[in-house]
Amino acid sequence: MQADLIATRALVQAGALTAAQAMDESMRLAQAPAAAHAFVSERFNAERERLHHTETAHLPLAGLAVSVKDLFDVAGQVTTAGSLALQDAPAATSDAPTVTRLRAAGGSIVGRTHMVEFAFSGIGTNPHFPTPAAFDYRFGPLPGAARVPGGSSSGAAVSVASGACYAALGSDTGGSIRIPAAFNGIVGFKSTARLVPTTGAVPLSTTLDTACAMTRSVRDAIVVHEVLAARRVTRSSAPLSAWRLAVPTHTFLDALDGTVSTAFQRTLDLLRQAGAQIESIDLPETGELGPMQAQGSLAAAESYAWHRPVLAQHAEQYDPRVRSRIERGAAMSAVDYIHLQHARQAWIARMEARVAGFDALLSPTVAIVPPLLSDVAPGEARDAAFFQANALVLRNTSVVNMLDGCALSLPCHVRGELPVGLMVWHAAGRDDAVLNVGQRIEELLQKQ
Amino acid sequence: MQADLIATRALVQAGALTAAQAMDESMRLAQAPAAAHAFVSERFNAERERLHHTETAHLPLAGLAVSVKDLFDVAGQVTTAGSLALQDAPAATSDAPTVTRLRAAGGSIVGRTHMVEFAFSGIGTNPHFPTPAAFDYRFGPLPGAARVPGGSSSGAAVSVASGACYAALGSDTGGSIRIPAAFNGIVGFKSTARLVPTTGAVPLSTTLDTACAMTRSVRDAIVVHEVLAARRVTRSSAPLSAWRLAVPTHTFLDALDGTVSTAFQRTLDLLRQAGAQIESIDLPETGELGPMQAQGSLAAAESYAWHRPVLAQHAEQYDPRVRSRIERGAAMSAVDYIHLQHARQAWIARMEARVAGFDALLSPTVAIVPPLLSDVAPGEARDAAFFQANALVLRNTSVVNMLDGCALSLPCHVRGELPVGLMVWHAAGRDDAVLNVGQRIEELLQKQ
Repeated sequence: MQADLIATRALVQAGALTAAQAMDESMRLAQAPAAAHAFVSERFNAERERLHHTETAHLPLAGLAVSVKDLFDVAGQVTTAGSLALQDAPAATSDAPTVTRLRAAGGSIVGRTHMVEFAFSGIGTNPHFPTPAAFDYRFGPLPGAARVPGGSSSGAAVSVASGACYAALGSDTGGSIRIPAAFNGIVGFKSTARLVPTTGAVPLSTTLDTACAMTRSVRDAIVVHEVLAARRVTRSSAPLSAWRLAVPTHTFLDALDGTVSTAFQRTLDLLRQAGAQIESIDLPETGELGPMQAQGSLAAAESYAWHRPVLAQHAEQYDPRVRSRIERGAAMSAVDYIHLQHARQAWIARMEARVAGFDALLSPTVAIVPPLLSDVAPGEARDAAFFQANALVLRNTSVVNMLDGCALSLPCHVRGELPVGLMVWHAAGRDDAVLNVGQRIEELLQKQ
Repeated sequence: MQADLIATRALVQAGALTAAQAMDESMRLAQAPAAAHAFVSERFNAERERLHHTETAHLPLAGLAVSVKDLFDVAGQVTTAGSLALQDAPAATSDAPTVTRLRAAGGSIVGRTHMVEFAFSGIGTNPHFPTPAAFDYRFGPLPGAARVPGGSSSGAAVSVASGACYAALGSDTGGSIRIPAAFNGIVGFKSTARLVPTTGAVPLSTTLDTACAMTRSVRDAIVVHEVLAARRVTRSSAPLSAWRLAVPTHTFLDALDGTVSTAFQRTLDLLRQAGAQIESIDLPETGELGPMQAQGSLAAAESYAWHRPVLAQHAEQYDPRVRSRIERGAAMSAVDYIHLQHARQAWIARMEARVAGFDALLSPTVAIVPPLLSDVAPGEARDAAFFQANALVLRNTSVVNMLDGCALSLPCHVRGELPVGLMVWHAAGRDDAVLNVGQRIEELLQKQ
């Protein structure tokens, strides 16, 4: 476990460390086994050289290493979105606005990270590239055989957990920031979608896509969110007991892995001992999401709208697991899609009414610990296991995307446990409360 | 031509006239030939009684008569949207928010007005109900045979032009407020859609629908818009010469009727003589709207989404001209619809960049004068003429709906001419500039 961005920035600003020295350490860790396969391309050396003649210490990201998911445009590079289908696409002529903001804030863009092809699943595997293994930021390598890193921002998570990067730009359409954050013991914050521009990225669902980031700590998540959203988070020093918290009993606690259940309950107990008021609430509306999407999902219809011309040329190059999910969108009628959009809006209104009296909701980020790579690795023989695990992995996180909400995942497991994420979440626009509550919880858990 | 709402309200507030006396005059005019068929139901007497024991003089609408298009819910009444298919639907349990706002502002809801079935055309005919004839608010009955009132808010326009009402609540999805305003020599203001709630109304296009109103003057339009939008318009006393105006040369001036062309050019000349700076601008983007909607329109897809279950039960009761337009939505795929939504957003961005340097655009509201009813009345023999006229009538106004913009239509013809509307318009959120410019133009035209 390395120091977080804020701690390292303090050293740089105090003159105890130079940004180039911090980059040396990032380079070293990027080459260590823990980071294997996290990057699909890297330019640590070039960024290290740049730091020798660029003054960045005064900026929010202080010249420290930041990775970019292969989904986002970086000027002069081809954005392949983890696919072979786009490898001959023209290079981007400009940076995505999120990349521009990271650079302007002093981030050193050190590489592009491994991802699920076109960001369309939560496990973290991709048949075209070796899978980076899940790595626990605080406690090091996971015991036993390799486990999947979670996705779709798989390499992004490992780039941070391994210590190579201080922050990782990714995206979250159904959980793609929070699932890998949970599986690698780091922090992922999916803001309210509209707060950060998604232009300059290959879309999955134009309705649900959120550009956001993973970090080493909640306090770092606030800094990076402020950069990405070009806004200030209102900090609160209110103690945990000042916030109205709730645990939804419906859906979110179903079929939990024993480790997840233990870590989640222990965390709730710890919060209560610290004075937190935590109620249980029922959210039966979460049970409506399956039937609501029976004619197809927003991601299926909206991704097919983008992919149709690419599929016409390159269908055989797609990951068959991803292609089958995209092609489901072809059969959807305009009316089915409109009904789904309207049903979602009505559902959001009902959900918002239920949770309005609370400052944040608490749930396990993912119902299970990271699956073994050998159980779900690419290959038709494991497709059934993959799709079953994928549905379970996405279940809790995707509720927040359908809600148009915001959610933070922070690690809540202890040494000797596989990684478990605690999700602190709420509806659209409640980002600051979620971040403040998350920071109080992080402070408490760090005293364990 | 009767006094407008502001002038009448001043009499009421000065004690020179009671609201009940004003209602007597509204009742008398509602029974005159000019208003024939404008109302599908009325309750002038009940409102007149109510005024005897309700104090309304201090309110913005001062107890004066207001009509409601049959599209909007009024508690206790069945909203049939001009159809037979909904005649057995349950009565509304509450007023639409727009109706609530009109009542709270002192409006007397005196009746429901004739409309095109389900609001789906701009001519103003409906096979289930006799068509109210176009009537010129300032100059009285149109010469010769009956002409169509424009639609879809047909009765709404005639309720105001005839003097029966001071304002008429209607809707505008492609021009349904502005076309009948132009055809009856009154004022229609389609605000930026999001400013006024559309709940409690039968939808045509959930993307484009705007709840808005017709009035006798631009200054009245400001008052009624403030009521409907629950906001204040920022008034400006700047002279015409202070505003940057432009006339788009593309699309809007094509195939103009001679009367329309003459009235429009005369108005521009008058404005220039009064010191207005009017530039010509080219808007070639307007030519893209046809191809953009070649796979189907937003209204087709979104109306079919609402009508599918009603059509399943009552298809044979629909106006065949309306049914055929709705059913086009059945064939549209989700991908076509998503492409159209994305294409529209990109088109709006390009259009907004073109017009950003101006305070308002000036165009003829409708390319032609009101067609003769005998040429386009319901009946298969006249379908071709109807659809041709309908496309021409909607052409200019619908550009503003696709732009998500705002537009005012005010009369610019002189005695002896058939009614012609001048459209003052701009992109989303420019409502106040459009209203202020419109008021300056109205003041100038009234001096003619």
